[in-house]
Amino acid sequence: MSRPLLMDINYTVFLRDEKLIIIDRRGFPRKVEELLCSDCEQVAQAIESMAVQGAGDIAIAAAYGLYLAAKELESKCSYRIQAKQCLQEPYQRLINTRPTGHYLKSLLDKIMNSLDDRLSPADQILLIIRQAIQKQQRRSELTGEWAEQLLQDGDTILTHCFPGPALLYMLQMASSNKKRIKVIACETRPYLQGARLTAPSVAALNIPVTLISDNMAAYCMAAGMINKVFTAADRIALDGTVANKVGTFQLALAAHYHQLPFYILGYSGPDRKSNHAADIPIEIRDPGEVLSYAGHLISGDGVQGFYPAFDLTPAELISAIITDRGIFQPELIQEYWT
Amino acid sequence: MSRPLLMDINYTVFLRDEKLIIIDRRGFPRKVEELLCSDCEQVAQAIESMAVQGAGDIAIAAAYGLYLAAKELESKCSYRIQAKQCLQEPYQRLINTRPTGHYLKSLLDKIMNSLDDRLSPADQILLIIRQAIQKQQRRSELTGEWAEQLLQDGDTILTHCFPGPALLYMLQMASSNKKRIKVIACETRPYLQGARLTAPSVAALNIPVTLISDNMAAYCMAAGMINKVFTAADRIALDGTVANKVGTFQLALAAHYHQLPFYILGYSGPDRKSNHAADIPIEIRDPGEVLSYAGHLISGDGVQGFYPAFDLTPAELISAIITDRGIFQPELIQEYWT
Repeated sequence: MSRPLLMDINYTVFLRDEKLIIIDRRGFPRKVEELLCSDCEQVAQAIESMAVQGAGDIAIAAAYGLYLAAKELESKCSYRIQAKQCLQEPYQRLINTRPTGHYLKSLLDKIMNSLDDRLSPADQILLIIRQAIQKQQRRSELTGEWAEQLLQDGDTILTHCFPGPALLYMLQMASSNKKRIKVIACETRPYLQGARLTAPSVAALNIPVTLISDNMAAYCMAAGMINKVFTAADRIALDGTVANKVGTFQLALAAHYHQLPFYILGYSGPDRKSNHAADIPIEIRDPGEVLSYAGHLISGDGVQGFYPAFDLTPAELISAIITDRGIFQPELIQEYWT
Repeated sequence: MSRPLLMDINYTVFLRDEKLIIIDRRGFPRKVEELLCSDCEQVAQAIESMAVQGAGDIAIAAAYGLYLAAKELESKCSYRIQAKQCLQEPYQRLINTRPTGHYLKSLLDKIMNSLDDRLSPADQILLIIRQAIQKQQRRSELTGEWAEQLLQDGDTILTHCFPGPALLYMLQMASSNKKRIKVIACETRPYLQGARLTAPSVAALNIPVTLISDNMAAYCMAAGMINKVFTAADRIALDGTVANKVGTFQLALAAHYHQLPFYILGYSGPDRKSNHAADIPIEIRDPGEVLSYAGHLISGDGVQGFYPAFDLTPAELISAIITDRGIFQPELIQEYWT
């Protein structure tokens, strides 16, 4: 059993010689290439272009972007005192990159609110990033541990997009506990994160994994091939609505019809500032990304495209939200904070 | 407004110099290439490899395959009298190519049952093919006419895979009747028939068409972007179960949740020999077709694939089945035959 690269952000998003290195996920699993970001704008573009993905990893990459901006500003006089003001522009640029996930904004807000003039802003940001990475890693492990308790020997689980390290911890622990689990991964068009990130990561754990197109999940459920569904969340509202990679909602509808448990790997719980679905902005991406694949145009002239990157699954379709602090009914997810 | 190539099978599946020419749909819409079939086996392979698709068009191509086999057997003595026996092997080869659609088998059965020794078998087969094409064209027009009555000015319809000429007739008539209709097409992985066949055909009619990935339909429904859903059927059982391109079932579930009408373009009605879902075999295709796209492997080592080509939508999720003889409640589709 090898450790999948995507289990540890320190190997995929890290500083080297004061530049940010991002292992570009767009070429995964065939090409593992470094993307070098020298300044905040390059980091913002890497996030927008999905060289890095997943709510937690995007947040860490953005925080490094703010760090690079802080380093660049160090030469300016009286910068320490005006740090918050000087960093306002890069902060705005970074939080606008991907509007749906809430962890990006909450981590950058935390940084902006913590800055004081006793230490250099760049040093303070780096400390917060290190803390955040440790916390995130621990959260993934704990979420995976709680989730593992929901698995039974012989289960086949369905998943969508790349639900992050918690899924892999869950599977690793299940293996240690002698539970034989199989995974079916939806390929997750148009970026194919399920095919490119999830399936190879699961295979690296020596766990049987089968890839299907996104439109085959309901067939597999009807055929009795699936026992449980697990996806991640990019943002959870206080009413239990879950924003996640587009396609999640459709899977939840199919699971509901087949009376299969539909679980959310909710890591750090709900966003305190999102009361319900209407508070979650859905990112609409470049339609060109739907109209082509790997440089091939897949349709004809005169055809438009539409690319909502996320969708919203209502609480009524969710069996439970699994977090680092335990397992919650979606309607009671606010209790995460109590 | 140009006439989409796929509206008339005489331009995509036809004889030239005693060979069958199939305009290979796998390269559509960018490449329009002829595939030349000199014998029955080559026709069978063209059907299996999806150079031709759609229940009706597959049946016609297969009938031409039987015609080529009959021509080849003409030299053999006493062949006329034993025609049925001599054609048994090519008949079996052809009906085994795609097991889910019922029109292929019913057309070949019709041919086999009609053969007598007054005419040469090849000539008889050709007459039946010409009749079948005319009948099919007329059925498409009638089905499209009935379906058009369900459209209202301003509707946006969702569709999946390539539902055949009835969809295009419906849209063409709606235009003539000054109804402004928009279409959203699901790309239909893994073969992308929605992207490659449906969307360009709709665009050729000057009707606005937007392509989405298969996992985005429920989002579009929740966002109020869709009024009605129309798909075709590869086989309809007497209890109203519909077998169609995989993904149809998931769309029906999403439409049901959003209380949107879900219509089946049912052309020639149900299969008399399929009482219910269990009587419809679902074709499971080569998993390699899910693991790659346009020659690119999309996943990593150790990942399996699974490719059910069709799924089954129960009658309870279907609003109506539209045929050449009118519009039926799915539970009453047997009345098609009365």
